[in-house]
Amino acid sequence: MKKFLNDPANFVKEMIEGISLANPGKYIYKPEYNILARNDIPANKVAIMQGSGSGHEPAHIMCVGKGMLDAACPGNVFAAPPMDYVYECTKLIANDAGVLHIINNYQGDRMSWDMGREMAEAEGIKIGVVIVDDDVSVQNSTYTVGRRGVAGNFFVIKCCAAAAERGKNLEEVVAVGKKVNANVRSMGMALTGCIPPAKGTPLFTLADDEIEIGIGIHGEPGRRRDKYRPAKDIMEELFTAIYEDLPFASGDRVAVMVNGMGGTPISELYLLYGEAAKKCEEKGLTVVHNYVGNYCTSLEMQGFSLTLLKLDDEIETYLNDPAECAIHVF
Amino acid sequence: MKKFLNDPANFVKEMIEGISLANPGKYIYKPEYNILARNDIPANKVAIMQGSGSGHEPAHIMCVGKGMLDAACPGNVFAAPPMDYVYECTKLIANDAGVLHIINNYQGDRMSWDMGREMAEAEGIKIGVVIVDDDVSVQNSTYTVGRRGVAGNFFVIKCCAAAAERGKNLEEVVAVGKKVNANVRSMGMALTGCIPPAKGTPLFTLADDEIEIGIGIHGEPGRRRDKYRPAKDIMEELFTAIYEDLPFASGDRVAVMVNGMGGTPISELYLLYGEAAKKCEEKGLTVVHNYVGNYCTSLEMQGFSLTLLKLDDEIETYLNDPAECAIHVF
Repeated sequence: MKKFLNDPANFVKEMIEGISLANPGKYIYKPEYNILARNDIPANKVAIMQGSGSGHEPAHIMCVGKGMLDAACPGNVFAAPPMDYVYECTKLIANDAGVLHIINNYQGDRMSWDMGREMAEAEGIKIGVVIVDDDVSVQNSTYTVGRRGVAGNFFVIKCCAAAAERGKNLEEVVAVGKKVNANVRSMGMALTGCIPPAKGTPLFTLADDEIEIGIGIHGEPGRRRDKYRPAKDIMEELFTAIYEDLPFASGDRVAVMVNGMGGTPISELYLLYGEAAKKCEEKGLTVVHNYVGNYCTSLEMQGFSLTLLKLDDEIETYLNDPAECAIHVF
Repeated sequence: MKKFLNDPANFVKEMIEGISLANPGKYIYKPEYNILARNDIPANKVAIMQGSGSGHEPAHIMCVGKGMLDAACPGNVFAAPPMDYVYECTKLIANDAGVLHIINNYQGDRMSWDMGREMAEAEGIKIGVVIVDDDVSVQNSTYTVGRRGVAGNFFVIKCCAAAAERGKNLEEVVAVGKKVNANVRSMGMALTGCIPPAKGTPLFTLADDEIEIGIGIHGEPGRRRDKYRPAKDIMEELFTAIYEDLPFASGDRVAVMVNGMGGTPISELYLLYGEAAKKCEEKGLTVVHNYVGNYCTSLEMQGFSLTLLKLDDEIETYLNDPAECAIHVF
């Protein structure tokens, strides 16, 4: 295993410390619970938090900022945050407007967040919950009952956060999150596996001519192993699976995300976006927003996922609102 | 070779088409010369262009936008743009204020840009040149006489572009570029090699316990092969080489860039940034700006480079100016 780290046991802590150092004055950083929180959360705004396993960066620890998450409290690599992380983070950001928990649908996450929520609610904190399960690949998976939550999560965060910044109350923000989740679909695939730092060996391996269609972001099996194929063919399969699932229809306005799994060069992601844009054109979808880059990754895995979000005026308004986070371009 | 592409021969064209499709209405796209140009270049502003080999994205084709490049005309993967690309691109963006060519110091690029410039000058176009050679790894390299131009190039683009947007004339913008190049130093290293699409096999290979210190962005050898080491030790070596080269000194204000080589997860880059920030603190450098992510890559290579730029009030002003490009976050 060759990774940029000092000790696998400290990988997540040292990463979060790096994020904190790269954003001086912006965050409250509590190393004991892997908490990074905005230090300027408005007192009367619904506070929004997330935190699943690490290893999916920029999800979610790098997405804390005005118009995005108010806080994140990730667990170790591919491990749900312990319940006390959820509890402490909730307490830290709680105010009279209440707290929204955005949770990706994995059993480990569900359990930690349920228990953390109960602990916080016992202290009188008002909490709303939105579960994200946008992955159309499989109905149940290795670590889920029901569908997995993957990159579509970003649209849930973005829209809930915009609604909260606009002064919506907790029930309204929960309704926004549920609406976005109901209108977003994703599917991923992998060219290679990845190596969790603590394991030191690949989670799974693919031969030189093999790919995995429908991969999970923790290496969970998807629909099948297949032979390596041209980008256009792979996009065709993922696009069709997503399009037919909602279903989308000609005339729909959409946001499109081509998400890298961590090790895929951005050159290849833009080539893939070109294929996705042509499929949208062919199907009569109008692309209003596009997102090309690494959003929800799986360490250094080479692969990508496609996400389509069906827009209405409300969702589009929220996507247009300003957002800040730990990462920036120039 | 497993990459997201359809035909290696069309890789670059299909990537640029994807960028164009992802930014509707923003660019003039001329596929025959791999040209992407802003469609809103002010008539009285020095026009700025760059274009070395592809495979280094987002450099430079994804950096076209207000406050960054006015146009780019990359060659094929790891190949300089042919002279007619340079000539046609120069003609396309030329105006009375003149054109700035920013060129990374590789012999292939120097030759193409010299000849393209002569062709354009013969038609009366006024052209200024800035050569970027920020890599401290080696004094001459496989494809260079003198030092290589790597990620420090971004600071040259950013500052020249800001100066041009502020109305500086061609001679003044050239002077800004030369000043930034004189104050910026970089060094890179690799954990793995990479596979150019047309070659189909790795440019070079590193064993499971090997790294290359001082790697070039086309796989050129650096200072030496070494055994895999903790992130802290690797950063110590790169930081020290850069720090002593300028030399930097306690009290300096700096911009710091931790640049991924394409296949390195952003989690590891932030961990590395944490190490860089601690080195800056130890040496008495004040970090005014930081940039963590993929800026100047080498396809899917796992590795990183560190860049330090010494700031003065003028350079800092230019870094603070707004900039747009093809890639965005939210």
